[in-house]
Formats: sequence, C-alpha cells, structure tokens
Amino acid sequence: MRAVQYRTIGGGPEVVEVPTPEPGPGQVRLRVTAAGLCHSDWFVMDLPADKYAYGLPLTLGHEGAGVVDALGDGVTGVAAGDAVAVYGPWGCGLCHACARGAENYCPRAASLGIQPPGLGSPGALAEYLVVDDVRHLVPLGDLDPVQSVSLTDAGLTPYHAIVSSLDKLPAGSTAVVIGAGGLGHVGIQVLRAVTGATVVALDISEEKLALASEVGAHSVLRSDPSAIEAIRSLTGGVGAQAVFDFVGAAPTVEIARKSVALDGVVQIVGIGGGLLPTGFFSTPMGASVRAPYWGTRTELMEVLDLARAGAVHVEVEKYTLDEAPEAYRRLHEGAVRGRAVVVPGD
Amino acid sequence: MRAVQYRTIGGGPEVVEVPTPEPGPGQVRLRVTAAGLCHSDWFVMDLPADKYAYGLPLTLGHEGAGVVDALGDGVTGVAAGDAVAVYGPWGCGLCHACARGAENYCPRAASLGIQPPGLGSPGALAEYLVVDDVRHLVPLGDLDPVQSVSLTDAGLTPYHAIVSSLDKLPAGSTAVVIGAGGLGHVGIQVLRAVTGATVVALDISEEKLALASEVGAHSVLRSDPSAIEAIRSLTGGVGAQAVFDFVGAAPTVEIARKSVALDGVVQIVGIGGGLLPTGFFSTPMGASVRAPYWGTRTELMEVLDLARAGAVHVEVEKYTLDEAPEAYRRLHEGAVRGRAVVVPGD
Amino acid sequence: MRAVQYRTIGGGPEVVEVPTPEPGPGQVRLRVTAAGLCHSDWFVMDLPADKYAYGLPLTLGHEGAGVVDALGDGVTGVAAGDAVAVYGPWGCGLCHACARGAENYCPRAASLGIQPPGLGSPGALAEYLVVDDVRHLVPLGDLDPVQSVSLTDAGLTPYHAIVSSLDKLPAGSTAVVIGAGGLGHVGIQVLRAVTGATVVALDISEEKLALASEVGAHSVLRSDPSAIEAIRSLTGGVGAQAVFDFVGAAPTVEIARKSVALDGVVQIVGIGGGLLPTGFFSTPMGASVRAPYWGTRTELMEVLDLARAGAVHVEVEKYTLDEAPEAYRRLHEGAVRGRAVVVPGD
Amino acid sequence: MRAVQYRTIGGGPEVVEVPTPEPGPGQVRLRVTAAGLCHSDWFVMDLPADKYAYGLPLTLGHEGAGVVDALGDGVTGVAAGDAVAVYGPWGCGLCHACARGAENYCPRAASLGIQPPGLGSPGALAEYLVVDDVRHLVPLGDLDPVQSVSLTDAGLTPYHAIVSSLDKLPAGSTAVVIGAGGLGHVGIQVLRAVTGATVVALDISEEKLALASEVGAHSVLRSDPSAIEAIRSLTGGVGAQAVFDFVGAAPTVEIARKSVALDGVVQIVGIGGGLLPTGFFSTPMGASVRAPYWGTRTELMEVLDLARAGAVHVEVEKYTLDEAPEAYRRLHEGAVRGRAVVVPGD
Repeated sequence: MRAVQYRTIGGGPEVVEVPTPEPGPGQVRLRVTAAGLCHSDWFVMDLPADKYAYGLPLTLGHEGAGVVDALGDGVTGVAAGDAVAVYGPWGCGLCHACARGAENYCPRAASLGIQPPGLGSPGALAEYLVVDDVRHLVPLGDLDPVQSVSLTDAGLTPYHAIVSSLDKLPAGSTAVVIGAGGLGHVGIQVLRAVTGATVVALDISEEKLALASEVGAHSVLRSDPSAIEAIRSLTGGVGAQAVFDFVGAAPTVEIARKSVALDGVVQIVGIGGGLLPTGFFSTPMGASVRAPYWGTRTELMEVLDLARAGAVHVEVEKYTLDEAPEAYRRLHEGAVRGRAVVVPGD
Repeated sequence: MRAVQYRTIGGGPEVVEVPTPEPGPGQVRLRVTAAGLCHSDWFVMDLPADKYAYGLPLTLGHEGAGVVDALGDGVTGVAAGDAVAVYGPWGCGLCHACARGAENYCPRAASLGIQPPGLGSPGALAEYLVVDDVRHLVPLGDLDPVQSVSLTDAGLTPYHAIVSSLDKLPAGSTAVVIGAGGLGHVGIQVLRAVTGATVVALDISEEKLALASEVGAHSVLRSDPSAIEAIRSLTGGVGAQAVFDFVGAAPTVEIARKSVALDGVVQIVGIGGGLLPTGFFSTPMGASVRAPYWGTRTELMEVLDLARAGAVHVEVEKYTLDEAPEAYRRLHEGAVRGRAVVVPGD
Repeated sequence: MRAVQYRTIGGGPEVVEVPTPEPGPGQVRLRVTAAGLCHSDWFVMDLPADKYAYGLPLTLGHEGAGVVDALGDGVTGVAAGDAVAVYGPWGCGLCHACARGAENYCPRAASLGIQPPGLGSPGALAEYLVVDDVRHLVPLGDLDPVQSVSLTDAGLTPYHAIVSSLDKLPAGSTAVVIGAGGLGHVGIQVLRAVTGATVVALDISEEKLALASEVGAHSVLRSDPSAIEAIRSLTGGVGAQAVFDFVGAAPTVEIARKSVALDGVVQIVGIGGGLLPTGFFSTPMGASVRAPYWGTRTELMEVLDLARAGAVHVEVEKYTLDEAPEAYRRLHEGAVRGRAVVVPGD
Repeated sequence: MRAVQYRTIGGGPEVVEVPTPEPGPGQVRLRVTAAGLCHSDWFVMDLPADKYAYGLPLTLGHEGAGVVDALGDGVTGVAAGDAVAVYGPWGCGLCHACARGAENYCPRAASLGIQPPGLGSPGALAEYLVVDDVRHLVPLGDLDPVQSVSLTDAGLTPYHAIVSSLDKLPAGSTAVVIGAGGLGHVGIQVLRAVTGATVVALDISEEKLALASEVGAHSVLRSDPSAIEAIRSLTGGVGAQAVFDFVGAAPTVEIARKSVALDGVVQIVGIGGGLLPTGFFSTPMGASVRAPYWGTRTELMEVLDLARAGAVHVEVEKYTLDEAPEAYRRLHEGAVRGRAVVVPGD
C-alpha cells in the first residue's frame, strides 16, 4: 500500500510503498477514509536526531478515520464496514487514568513503549491503518470522514482544554482564544456550544480573525500587547476567566499571563515553546496554568456528538495521498485555512 | 403608596393604599420599576387557613426590580438612582449555605422568621419596596427592568436547576423540559446557552410547543405517555440525561421517571404536587431525583449576564398596578404567554 | 471443577461438579482464591420464575479474586500467576459510560446480553472463573485475597455512593449510615478515610452498632423513628448532608427522608424494596434521592488502594466451597458478622 | 489601647498606645482574645518604601479572634459577648466572587481600597479590633481562641489549597507537602482529615520533619533534589497527584515541578519568590500550577469545624502583647514551633 513516511532526520515527508499490515489478535485494520495533517507533525520532523524518539521510518498521521476492514482474533464490538474515527492518545488501558478514559495521561504508556499512531506507531497517512484495540475506535455513523477526521485532534484537544475549565466559565464569564487556526477555530465553536461565556479571539492574521468572527467569536483582537488592555477593558477590569493559548509561544503566554483573571485558568495548548512563570507577583492570585494534552475517550465521543448536532464544523482543505508532502509545505507556511486532510482513496 | 395585597384567606389579590415604608439601618428602599407575577403566588393564595404561613395582609410579588430610592444607615455599595434586581430567597447571610451564596437553602431562615419579599415579607407589587440588605440587590445596568424582572425567579429557578445538573449534560447528551410556560421557556434558552445538550420540550398546549421551538428546543413532543417512547427513540434507547419538570404534577413526574437515563437526573421544579417514588425497580439505577428551590446569589448575577449577552429573553405581558388582579386571573387560566409583569409607574 | 450453583427456582445453592471452563480470545481464566457471598444473591434466589432473568444453572458469586491461570488469544497486560480482583459490573466497554469506566451504568449491557459474573455469567463460587476481558481485572498486589475480595462489591458499592456525594460532605458536615452490616461497616470506614464528615450509624442490632463504633462511627443510634430527632439534634437542627441507606426498606427510607438536610443527598443502597416519594412538601428542598449501583473501574482501584493503606478492613467469616450453602443460610439469618467469604482451595 | 504597629519603613514592630476605635454603622468592635503572627507580616515589613502599599502606621495582625464588644448601627446576627474568629480576606461583598464567599479573589477590593485587617486596615495585634461587617465573623463556640486563632490563616490557607485540589486526591493518590512549619503542619492534618491520600512531607529541618510525622505524614523526606527520586519511587514512578509548596522558593518549586504527576496539581502557597516555568517540556502534561491566596468564608467555617472535631490542631507558642516584637524576631529566625500567638489580655 502507499503511505506517507518520515524516513530520515530532516528529510521531510515522502510517499512510499510499504506492505499492507495484518491485524493481530485484538487488533482492527481500517481502510483509511481520511487523515489529518497537524503542525505537531512538523514539530516532530524538526527535531534533531538526539531528541527524536518516534522511530524511523515513521508513517505519519495521528488524525485518522476509516472503515473497518479486517478484525484480529477475539475482536468484538465492531463489524467490517463500520465507519469509525481513531482515538489517538493510546494508553495501557489498565491504570487509574486509562480506566476513566484519560489515556492521554497514562503514566505507563512511555515505559511500555505505547505510542500514538503517527507519533511512534504507524499512522493514518496510508491506505490502511492497524489500530491496537477496539476501544480506540469511535463510531462515525453518518458523519463525513473528511469533514470529521480532524475532530480527533483539532477538535478533541480544544474540547478537552475547554471542558476541563468549565467550572471557570459560567454564564457571564469571558474566554480568550489566542490563535484562530486549525485548533483555535474549533475551540471558538466549542466554547460557543458548551458555555455561556463571551469569546474573544486573538490572532496576528486578519484572515484568521475573519474566520474567528465567522465561527462565533464575539470580539476579535490583534494578538499583540495591546490586546491585554483591550481584554481588561472588555471585562470591566476583571480579566478573562479562561485563556486558551493555541500558539503557546513566548509572546502569547505573556498575553495570557496578563489577561487572566484572579482564580482563572490559562491552558497552554500550542507547542510554541513558551513557558509561563507561575507564582506570586507573576500570575494573578489563584490563577492556574496548565499545558493539557489531547483528550479522553469520552471527550472524543462528545466532540463527534457536537459535530453531529451541527455545532462544530472544521474548515478543511482536501488533498490526495500523493499531494500530502505539498499539503505539509502549505501547512508549514501557515497557508492552510483550517485543517489539511488527505483522502487516500482519491 | 399603592400595593397589591392578599388580605383575607381566599380573598384573592386586591389593590390597596398603604403607608410608604422607610428603610431601617442596613436596608435599602427601591422605587419599583417592574414586578413579576408567578404561579406560586396562586399556590399561596389557594392554601387553606391552617396551612397559610405568610402573614396577612401580604403585599405580593417575589420578582422585583427597581431604582435605589433611599438608603438606611450604614449602607454602602449602592447609590440612589442605581437600577437593580432583587434576589428573593433571603437567608440569614451568616451560615455555611449563605456564606457561599446559597441563601435559597439557608437552614436558619425559617426559625429566624426570615421570609422572601412577597412570600412573607412585603413584596414588589407596590410602588416602593424595602430590601433588607444590599447583598440582595444585583445591578441591572442597562437591562430593561420590565424585560428582566422575571429573571429573578422565572430565570433564576431554571438556571439553578440546570447548572446543578451540568455534570450530566456534556455535549451529546439530551435534556427534556416538561412545560414550556413561564419557567420552561426560559429553561430551554438556558440549556441552549450553557450546554451542548439536545433539548426536547414537552407541553400539552400547541401554542407553548410553538414557543418552545421558537426559543430553541430541538424537538417538541406532546406531554403525554407517548412522549416516553419518543424520548427513548430520540436517544437510541438510552433516555434523557436530565429531565426538568416545570409542571411537577403526578403525570409529568411519571413521564420523568420513565424518560431519565441510568445515572441521570430529574429536577422537579414545578409545584404541581407530584411525588416521584425513588429507589430500586422504580427509578433507573443511579438516577437522582430532586426538587430544587430558586437559586443562589451568584446564579442570579449569571442569569442576568446571559440576558445582557442576548442569550435569554423572557416573553412578557405588561400590566399596570391596577390591572394586577386581572393579570393574576389570566395567569390562573393559563392564558399568559411567558410571564406577566406589572409596572407600578404606568 | 466444583462450583456453587443455583439450579432450580426456589432450590437454593448447591455444590456441584461442572466442566472447567476454557478462556476464549481476549478472555482470562482465574484460579479462584476467594469469593464473597452477598445478600443480593438471596434477592436473586428468592425471585419467582417469572421475574428471574439470570439463566439456570447459575454459578453464584459476584465478588471474586484469583490468580491468573490461563490467557486467551491476544490477551496482554496480565501474566499467569498475577493476583487480581474482579470488577463485576461488566458493560459493553465502548459507550460513553464505559469509556469513562462507569460500566455499572452501561446502557447497552442489557440489550447485548452482558451480565456480571454470578448474576447471569458464571460466577466466582467455583474453582475457576473466566473473565471476559483483562480490563475487568485489578491487580491485588500483596493484598490478602480473602480479606480483600469483598471490597469488589461490599467495598466498591459504598465507596461509589460516598464519592458521588463528596460535594455534600465537606469538613463539618454529617453523614448518616443506616445499616452497619456487610456494606455499612465498610461505608463507615470509607467515610472516615475520605471525608472530614461526622459519621452517625444506625442499626437495629446492638452487635452491629458495636461494630459501627469499632470501625469509626462518631455516634450510633437505634434505627427507629426516634433517630430522626436525634440526628436533628446532633446537627443543630440542620439534618444530615448525606444519608446512606444500606437497608433500603420502607422504614429506613422514611428515616432518610426526615433526616436529610436542605440540598443534601440520600443514597438508597440496600435493595430492601423501600421507595422514597421525592418532591415538594415530601423531601427537603434541594435534597437529591438516588439508588446507586455498584461502582466504576477506577473506584475499585481506589478502594483497593484504601485497603492497602490500612484505611479499610472488611470483617470476614471464612468458609470452604463445600460449606457455601451453610454460609448462605447464616447470611440469610443475619448471623454473619461483616462478610462471608468462600476459599475454594481450602 | 495598646497595639503593635509597623510605623516606619524598616522599623520593625513596636508596641504603642493608640485611641480605642469606635464601630461605625454596620461595624463590630471585638475585644481581641488572640492574634496570630505570620511570616507574611515580615514579608510586608521587608518591602522597600516604593513597594510598600499598606499605609503607615499599620496595626499588625491578620489572624484575629475576639469577643463581640460593641455593635455599630444596624448590626444583627451577633450579640455582645459572642466569641468569634475574623475572616481576613475582605472583599466588596457584592461581586460574583464575593457572592459565593470567595472574597479572597474579589477583583474589586484593590480599586475600592478594601484591605484585610493587619494588611492595610488596622489589625488584630491590639486590645480592640473593628471589623467592617458581621459577615466577616465566624462563631468560635467553645473553641479556645488561642489554639484556634491561627486557623484563620495558617489553617484556612492550606485548607483552601487542599480542597481546591480534591478532584486530584482520591483514595490511593499521593500528596506532597513541602515545608512543615506554621502552615505546612496544619496542611498535613487537613490532608489526613479530608482525603484518603498518602501524605509525604519535606523539610530541611529534622525537628519539623519530626513534627510532620507526629501530625500524620505517612513519610518524611529531606527537602533537597534527592526527594524527587524518592517521591517517584514511593509512587511507582507516577509522581504526586498534588504538591503543596508552603515555602515557594526557587529550589522548592523545582522539586514540585519534577515531582508532580501527569494531570496533577502544584499549589504554590509560600511566598518565597519562586516562579515555576509552566508549559510543554517543562511541567508534566496536564499538570496545573497555581498560587492560591487565603480562602473563602465557607472554608473558614469548615476548618473551624475540623478543629471542633479534633481533626486539626495548631502547635502554638503564646506571648503577651508586649512580647510581640520578640515573638516576631523568633519567627523570623525560624525558631517558632508551629505558630506564635499573642494574647492581648495577658
């Protein structure tokens, strides 16, 4: 089958021919119907050899959707032909965190060598994908896989950050979203769908601010230090009860630090390398700062439910498998509106 | 001043002339700008003498808004001319419940003789109202008092029931609202504003079902036993994660009992006299049943914030003080669309 | 192998010889090291034929511990020789509830024919037990299986009821435990271990009240209507923030109804057939009533952790497999102190 | 009356004679029965003139207990002779935060010039203290004021940090306490009283580690980088679900950063100037970092309830008002075991 692989450090993504995988006992093979591209793939491909820990060659793609194609021994709960999305942050399945579905925080995965598809295990940018356990599949039903595949990361990640901040976001509160790109434009929609908060979006691109407004932001602001004063002003001096930083660079975490309210929360979602010095006389009293990671199994079901209800929609640019390297390039340049999705069958 | 009073058991509401009250130390006098009428006023006026515990004569009206008119000694935090709404479920202010703003569950109020305005203390259906403490006032800002006054009960009560069920109402869940009248039509809007749940509304009146759809219900159903099967069907057999019964009569609590999901919640808000037999082999395993009462101080602020954001709107019929008895009659007959509001100054 | 089965309606438990089961793909066979007896087994065996839904013959025992003996195809995560406890309330593993570990509230189990061991599936009162999936096993480590096996139900069930009421049980609150038997005496210990609440225990047996005091109850009261006044008095008139009724009969739910505080919670855990009429003018305003069922996967891990820390101890009477019918008789007569446990190897 | 004041920048505490204050409308005068000394008083007295914002002269003492001595106009809810503790983090009383009792996070206090007693308003290190509102008094009942006064800060502050982390501290979790001094030794007791967590205490003083064990820590460790590995080892490699840093210096926040589990929480309580760089590749994924401040009104009631139940005890060294400067000196030198308390009447 064809697959998009990262094969040599610094080599970028390549389309190659590899053997079609067979599902072992308990495993499920999918025919991939859609696979999403993510900035974090570039983060991985930009790592120097001594920091790279995902194995080579690596079939890329940690956002996947497909149709059940073959079942390993002992698999129950899905049938050939079922349309499914893949839950990516695989854990051990047996520890305290995994037992409540928070495999994204499994403390044993690393030591057991368990890695997400596309981030160590073979990923979804291929014609076929083997998933290690039926619990990592969520029914898509009649959701369009191309429109929905990015919800497995670009939807789930903001959803997790937002629902883990819900106690800070009652009616009348203010949520700030920094970065209205692939994740941010979904985050805005999730905030509108599941909270009564006022949503203020920040970006440096006019085009992305326009997208932010289109998907529901109440206000948009240019993402620079002037935004801090504007947020204070919009909130009667109180600040934002929650700030979701989908960029996570030094300048944006600084905006977050100065915009968050007393007893509020900053969720640093983007992996832009920014670190926020947290403590007295730096962050407001009681304000929590946190870098969340992906989301739980139940949360993936819920974000797909939101899409089914029409409350969340991912802006998508569609590519063939052969176009994947080109799509990655456009993503790197910040030229993609929303999310780039590869359809292997096209 | 003129006031609407209940003066004799069985006598119904009357417009009378009474002395204008003076605020004592710590108290605040309002010039009333709007006062809402409520079904529960009829509940009180229908009580026989041996069950009636609110004193006579009773100035009616537990939904009040006004302009600060005179301050008692030692009052700070408001100024003459401020537009405010009145928080009604007064508590002692000093116990555990009151200290977290849940004066609606103050265990000391009864023994201390503290009663809400219009339900023991002189109410808002008058030209002037004395409020016992500045903490029971919430700024209205530029909200229209006539449009907003009913949020102090018809908004706050469903808001409290809903936010105390939020953990049952993630994206993808289903909420059932029984009764799309004064409280129910606000409840539907609150559910849409603060959750990602699918909202199913039940009523026996076609007109109210039309109102339910208009204010955001995803589906509407006739409120009879056939609704049970319809709800099961809409939820893939699972049932509703939360049922809000704004009628609370025997037939509606029975619908609630049979419609709620495992581990779900039934909130009996209406005082229709229905009791739900709770326990094994009657209610689904894990399902909670509860009759909530009014709401907390913070929740009133939040529901006003929702209105300010345009997310909640009360349907209102407007009356003068002299028309209040007639408005009560229409309310009794179920003829009011939304909520009846008296404007003493008109 | 030998097993204790319920074979004919009304026939009671019998020790019989049955084929040793083989684990299929994904399944795990345990050599049983301990199996607990439960009042609910009698509830099942007392059902008339038209209400009995567990199949015949039924190998009894829904509390099980064992040593991993044989692995079906594709099983990973446990190894032969591992000491484990069995999580009993099996669900589908794939729905929203199961994905967060709440298989006890799986809405699909019934329609899929999934039943707990000992309550439809072959149970633990046998020399060997086949468990359907490795996720239903929790490591025992060096916990003694005989001392610990009952934590899988008599520990997990009160633990679930208590932790789902934690928001009502801050320091300074009062928890009432009705019934200090198998579940109740563990519930008292859990309350002492995980809350700062004052614990008041009620029972009709002096012996059980002595056990209640021994395991940590701050006060003990005879379980009759006089307890209501005593609880009001102990709580300054406020009532108990949480009542855990491990009997669940008509007289005990009535005590619960009259003892619970405003905005408190009643958890009816015992299946004594009592139903609590919930609603205005019956239950205190804001008080929730609920019949919980067993517990979640994570909660089982946590209750075993508590035992490991020495915070929870089950009183146990030990029997051989051949003595199981006699042990059931003693249980039925209320003669067992704490919990009866069968050790098949003895 | 006599009072302990900070009168000139750098001048340290002095005992002086000042006029006895009169309570205005709504205010309450206490005869002080006990006042606690705190490290943060030294923090304030060590500030250079350009950072000092508390006014001069400043009567010190933000931990106060007393007997109601005189009531201003309009005060209800307390009577002369009542024994009370003072809630210190005064807020406006009217905003969202204050309405739910979280005056410690009032966003309006600063701009309104509202300051806690001893931190801007005249404090409790005096014969008499005027409290601005009856809501800032909590009944002491028969609690000994000398033993209890420090619960208003040294009890409330750790209690708030701990209960706002309760969702991270189920049975089986691990809590680390860094610093077993005035606040830390109470924090250990609170953790034991309200959670089922294992408590690991760190300090650099052998004497304080002995105190930590005495008040309930399961393990004690020397507070240096070796503790990180020891904590990992005690937790099976997982780390601590919650770290409470009562020192808050650069080396201790570094221990916290490296000891906290995935999805755990670090609460920096001590004002030692340490800032924790929070974000990807610095803090574990999902771990929250926060500097909490004091506590809420309800929490103060709860921590006093804990003391009443015998679950929390403050180690106290007792001084007269005239000895206060000497007591401050001992505190500064780290020589006080537990907390220093001044009894003005002695």
